[in-house]
Amino acid sequence: MFEQFDISLPSLELKAALQHKIDSKTKPVGALGELESIAFQLGAIQNSLTPDVSKPKMIVFAADHGVVDQGISLFPQEVTPQMVMNFLMGGAAVSVFCQQHGVPLRVVDVGVKSSIDDHPLLGQRKVAFGSKDFSQQAAMTTQELARTINAGVDEADLAIDAGCNLLMFGEMGIGNTCVSSCLMSAMTGLSASQCSGRGTGLDDAGVSHKARVIEASIQRAEEETGISAAKWGPQTLAEQLGGFEIIAMASAMLQAAHRQTAFVVDGFICTVAFLFAQKVEPNVRHYAVFAHQSNEKAHRLLLEQLKAEPILSLDLRLGEGSGAILAYPLIQSATVFLNQMASFESAGVSGQS
Amino acid sequence: MFEQFDISLPSLELKAALQHKIDSKTKPVGALGELESIAFQLGAIQNSLTPDVSKPKMIVFAADHGVVDQGISLFPQEVTPQMVMNFLMGGAAVSVFCQQHGVPLRVVDVGVKSSIDDHPLLGQRKVAFGSKDFSQQAAMTTQELARTINAGVDEADLAIDAGCNLLMFGEMGIGNTCVSSCLMSAMTGLSASQCSGRGTGLDDAGVSHKARVIEASIQRAEEETGISAAKWGPQTLAEQLGGFEIIAMASAMLQAAHRQTAFVVDGFICTVAFLFAQKVEPNVRHYAVFAHQSNEKAHRLLLEQLKAEPILSLDLRLGEGSGAILAYPLIQSATVFLNQMASFESAGVSGQS
Repeated sequence: MFEQFDISLPSLELKAALQHKIDSKTKPVGALGELESIAFQLGAIQNSLTPDVSKPKMIVFAADHGVVDQGISLFPQEVTPQMVMNFLMGGAAVSVFCQQHGVPLRVVDVGVKSSIDDHPLLGQRKVAFGSKDFSQQAAMTTQELARTINAGVDEADLAIDAGCNLLMFGEMGIGNTCVSSCLMSAMTGLSASQCSGRGTGLDDAGVSHKARVIEASIQRAEEETGISAAKWGPQTLAEQLGGFEIIAMASAMLQAAHRQTAFVVDGFICTVAFLFAQKVEPNVRHYAVFAHQSNEKAHRLLLEQLKAEPILSLDLRLGEGSGAILAYPLIQSATVFLNQMASFESAGVSGQS
Repeated sequence: MFEQFDISLPSLELKAALQHKIDSKTKPVGALGELESIAFQLGAIQNSLTPDVSKPKMIVFAADHGVVDQGISLFPQEVTPQMVMNFLMGGAAVSVFCQQHGVPLRVVDVGVKSSIDDHPLLGQRKVAFGSKDFSQQAAMTTQELARTINAGVDEADLAIDAGCNLLMFGEMGIGNTCVSSCLMSAMTGLSASQCSGRGTGLDDAGVSHKARVIEASIQRAEEETGISAAKWGPQTLAEQLGGFEIIAMASAMLQAAHRQTAFVVDGFICTVAFLFAQKVEPNVRHYAVFAHQSNEKAHRLLLEQLKAEPILSLDLRLGEGSGAILAYPLIQSATVFLNQMASFESAGVSGQS
């Protein structure tokens, strides 16, 4: 199912030249901190001394989740299509930040529970009207999984074929913090309660309830498959737990990396999608730029496990790709310093003694 | 000397209305984290439900320091005017980041050791050809201090009179990390070694030497004034330790606050200037947005003392206002979400249960 995603390592051909270029800029060696690492990473990915992220694209995948029937979210499920409309009409956080930075936004329905009218910014790729409640049964069928993967791959291809050189991903789906916690627990072996947070604002009782639902769901799936969660491959994980937007996003990440295109990882849900992608093909890691550490405690834990150091830490807990788009100007700054700053030589500035 | 800086508190007239507007946006309450605090702060400062930072300005103050004769910097003093030229020619980090964000840059010579040719971006306000070596004598005279304060005030006034609604400050001056450490030690009572870091890249021996110079300099000044450092007022601090760009910047911060204009605090040296400004008039605090936490360990300590939580933490150690300009798009995002996002009502999105 996931065999298509062979990913080669970024070229190391320019390694020395890139580091030399970074170090020759008019600043003390290393003084631009994390921007220097990002500049180096982008140069290696693009195999260029003048990497370019001037054609970015934000793709927000949206879907619904049957498990909301278990009362694991504060917001009603009708909010998913309402927020999709809000993205399309330009009123959501990710919309206004995309406008601020001139980044084109696309919203892709891979599994919203209701139909959404056509719109120039909308990709109609509905696999099903929401996933099944994974506390009771598998979230999706094998056929649905195949279509979900295709949705992610096609979206990445569309963008890259049009010249996009930096993909950003976001998500919308009431209940998807719970789905992500469940996937994280199944993939890492960490307990459901370690993987569960407040989502859009649950209180302690709500978080405990969510953790119990997750624990029971994994047990249900282990019984049904006759395999312990620790041994599940990507296909079982995706079919048993879903969700459509998370697996579509993971597939888009894999396809971006397959095509040697850098992508930005947003908050908790996107990082879980990344963890899934990494389970499919570890080399995907080299193409990922981590945007921010959210306020969701499980996100901090997951980033530690991944040894990822995101650019921002602003106590965001919104999703939508909002952290990714807020980090975009800083990713751009990494290319700006590399491409536009003077060198000690060109500016006639004396070096350090 | 500093009596002119009376600063009123930002208005609380719109407090409830601002919080209501922030909370009515289509996102869970508090989900935009630190951006919500910045939006609230800017709304209060401008006494407006639609605060605006679309006319920012970056002012970089430059000067030299006699104390470099003690061998406390890796770079030779000729780098100060060379970097000023680099700022003006558009090749420095702060230059390219200002260009990236469309922020006008101005460089103000308040005490560079050599003459700099006129340039449209240059403010010629040289108070002296470098400060005196404060390990041997007072850094500046009372008359020089008065002219330094005026330089900062005039620059803030020029910008604000032209409609600027967000001031950003940067600095350039070989040796000014040492001057800042010395000011910090004198103002906080923390030891010279707690206040000393690597600057542009000193090794352990270099840092120890710098700390010894600082300790001896404060002792020299205590003996000369007959007053212990803990009891020095702003005038004694400035005259004994300098430096021209730090005191000019502190004066510009005070004048910005006096005129109810928000300003951005960059890294270690700017934060020491802010600490000085706060010693003059504590209300200046309400107008300050902290941009980033640098890699200089004394900066972390100082921010903790100030209970300030900067927007970025990117391991920068460059100065120039580079952290401030990198934080600018995020400060702008705070106004963008407040002014442009839809409300639950306007977007027809259901609220949480």
